[in-house]
Amino acid sequence: MGFEAIIGIAASVFTSTALLPQLIKIIREKKANDISIAMLAVLFTGLALWVWYGFMKTDWIIIIANIFALIINFISGVLTIYFKRKHA
Amino acid sequence: MGFEAIIGIAASVFTSTALLPQLIKIIREKKANDISIAMLAVLFTGLALWVWYGFMKTDWIIIIANIFALIINFISGVLTIYFKRKHA
Repeated sequence: MGFEAIIGIAASVFTSTALLPQLIKIIREKKANDISIAMLAVLFTGLALWVWYGFMKTDWIIIIANIFALIINFISGVLTIYFKRKHA
Repeated sequence: MGFEAIIGIAASVFTSTALLPQLIKIIREKKANDISIAMLAVLFTGLALWVWYGFMKTDWIIIIANIFALIINFISGVLTIYFKRKHA
């Protein structure tokens, strides 16, 4: 594997796992008032498009990284809406 | 431009601009208590790696989309730390 590919994979891992600490924070503190639903929705659309792009290119790094991010994003979105309503 | 490229560009645009509504929400409400600094830090690292990857591949879509996202991320990070301290 070339150096370029390693940097690309590292970049994918960081951007795909970025929402994980946010999700953990939401679960721990049971609060999400300051989180933008629009941010999560735009990100969801973008990640879904990346998965589609990955399938068209048959690029498994893109597919797996973005499906992982989509799952974290989806759970974050559901919990954000839930806690916003609870504290509304 | 092929259909694949259009989906790839659309995906880039959505994932790169996702933080913009979050930044606008922080500026409007002057609060960022529920936002994870770790999320912004991991994302910053990932985006910087994407910019590096873009330069290695001389791929201007990757470079521009991720530099834009880095700027939004950086401003969001500075304001998040500022408002967290203010409300601490």
